[in-house]
Amino acid sequence: MHENDLIASFLSLFASTDASVLVGSGPDDCAHVQSDGNRLAFSIDAFVEGSHFLADASPADIARKSLGASLSDLAASACRARWALVTLCLRKGLPAGWAAEFARALADAAAAYGVSIVGGDVVAGMATSVSVAVTGEPMAGGPVLRSGGRAGDVLVVTGDLGGSLLGRHFRPEPRAAEMAALMAYATGEAHAFGLPSAAMDISDGLALDLSRLCRESGVGAVVEASAVPVSSAAAEMAATSGKTSLAHALTDGEDFELLLAMPPELWRGFSLWLDAEPRGLAPFTRIGVLREGSGVSLSTGGRECVLNAEGYEHQW
Amino acid sequence: MHENDLIASFLSLFASTDASVLVGSGPDDCAHVQSDGNRLAFSIDAFVEGSHFLADASPADIARKSLGASLSDLAASACRARWALVTLCLRKGLPAGWAAEFARALADAAAAYGVSIVGGDVVAGMATSVSVAVTGEPMAGGPVLRSGGRAGDVLVVTGDLGGSLLGRHFRPEPRAAEMAALMAYATGEAHAFGLPSAAMDISDGLALDLSRLCRESGVGAVVEASAVPVSSAAAEMAATSGKTSLAHALTDGEDFELLLAMPPELWRGFSLWLDAEPRGLAPFTRIGVLREGSGVSLSTGGRECVLNAEGYEHQW
Repeated sequence: MHENDLIASFLSLFASTDASVLVGSGPDDCAHVQSDGNRLAFSIDAFVEGSHFLADASPADIARKSLGASLSDLAASACRARWALVTLCLRKGLPAGWAAEFARALADAAAAYGVSIVGGDVVAGMATSVSVAVTGEPMAGGPVLRSGGRAGDVLVVTGDLGGSLLGRHFRPEPRAAEMAALMAYATGEAHAFGLPSAAMDISDGLALDLSRLCRESGVGAVVEASAVPVSSAAAEMAATSGKTSLAHALTDGEDFELLLAMPPELWRGFSLWLDAEPRGLAPFTRIGVLREGSGVSLSTGGRECVLNAEGYEHQW
Repeated sequence: MHENDLIASFLSLFASTDASVLVGSGPDDCAHVQSDGNRLAFSIDAFVEGSHFLADASPADIARKSLGASLSDLAASACRARWALVTLCLRKGLPAGWAAEFARALADAAAAYGVSIVGGDVVAGMATSVSVAVTGEPMAGGPVLRSGGRAGDVLVVTGDLGGSLLGRHFRPEPRAAEMAALMAYATGEAHAFGLPSAAMDISDGLALDLSRLCRESGVGAVVEASAVPVSSAAAEMAATSGKTSLAHALTDGEDFELLLAMPPELWRGFSLWLDAEPRGLAPFTRIGVLREGSGVSLSTGGRECVLNAEGYEHQW
């Protein structure tokens, strides 16, 4: 069973009739609730030795990765992460100071993103594992869900894709500033181009995550192969993997970049704003469009082929 | 190192200057934050195979225990649990259906307490572990913290104490209805007896938890030995343990009962209200008072001795 199928079937057992629950969370996603008129977003992720990191991974890498994944989820739904809780299970026999090194790295990463670690629990066990739960509040105009894409929307990604195994998977850079800039632009009073219609972070590879966005939005998509921003790490991996660098960019996991769908006029205005002066943000790249129908196609020199949704998933 | 010392030193590395954080959480406790004028409370707990349960524990028992502990924390701080997130790490080789059985029991327990499970994550690992994060909102008059106790307050507990190892530790009954009844009484318009001044749940034994309440409130306490409600399980364990049933009631962990400090006039009014008709609540028992000074004494037939704070803690 694929990891996400298991998670989906697990979460389906918690169907709620609670009117305060606007959106329950699925895999790689946030839950959205209503608290006394305020909206809140929640995200939780677990990381365990043997599945997400090896026994010799540094506590700082584990800390950054475990916080980064949830922050990326929240940023992608146009929510500002505010408070985090963490549980740490320490494998017996870890060196003294491991927990403190983990905590310091987590505190540094949290401070960099304006998040307060407000509580936690530490236990001893047979394997090291971490869970991080983050609560956030919507940015103006937010939240943006993965289900709102419409035919005609432009598809945009941040940063470049692929090859995270060469190191970036331990140093996720949640695109909170990028999403905040887009939302601030879209809700600015001079602009009437609408809001982003759908967004998610790319955690299991562009191909698989875009297929999810399409399915939940009830649309299809076409991606222009030549437009996909391929990372130098993807090219480096391609030198020995037997796959092309584009294949790495389309299917490698843990990019933690934004995948956005928005009206063309919003993209036109926002990209002009981006180009007007240095903004200190990761690049935004238009990679394709949403259209009627279903499924994701890859267009190469005007010819289309089906893009299989074969991003990275843990196997069971 | 005692478990709570480790947790405290871990959490101390997350000191926050964020004005939205009203109270950061310590061990067995909630964090309280301010969101756009609303208050929220957070609690998170981790449970791991080998430390909190054995490999043959039933998924339903683990589910109830892991949710119950956080619900008990929230109830004790006069907050209503609203939304929960859960991460489950499944030991490879667990029988098919384990996760579904866990999820169903968790959903049932959540429904019984009016909590919505809004998201989660499932991963595979070398040992089974669970983390549950719960978000709540204060009841009218809440939150009540463990730090507000005053000399002259009456000490009250719910239920009876001790012997949870005989089975109750897997079936915690968070005292949400009891706390809600007390807060509703205290804030009722006919009453002007004040609010409970301090509260916490008894998770590491009355002796240890009361010593924490006293330390954080800057007061001392005296407990009347004959007033302590001793559970039948404590008496049963005493038959073979070599300890008295009172010792079990004072020091066994995982009672998940409420420990309350309140003005005498509030206790007088509330206990009359309790006695006036059947309320379907666990019993409330006055067990002593807070007083100037520090430390906890046990009074037996008018003679006082120091009550050592030797409740149950996981040893490291």
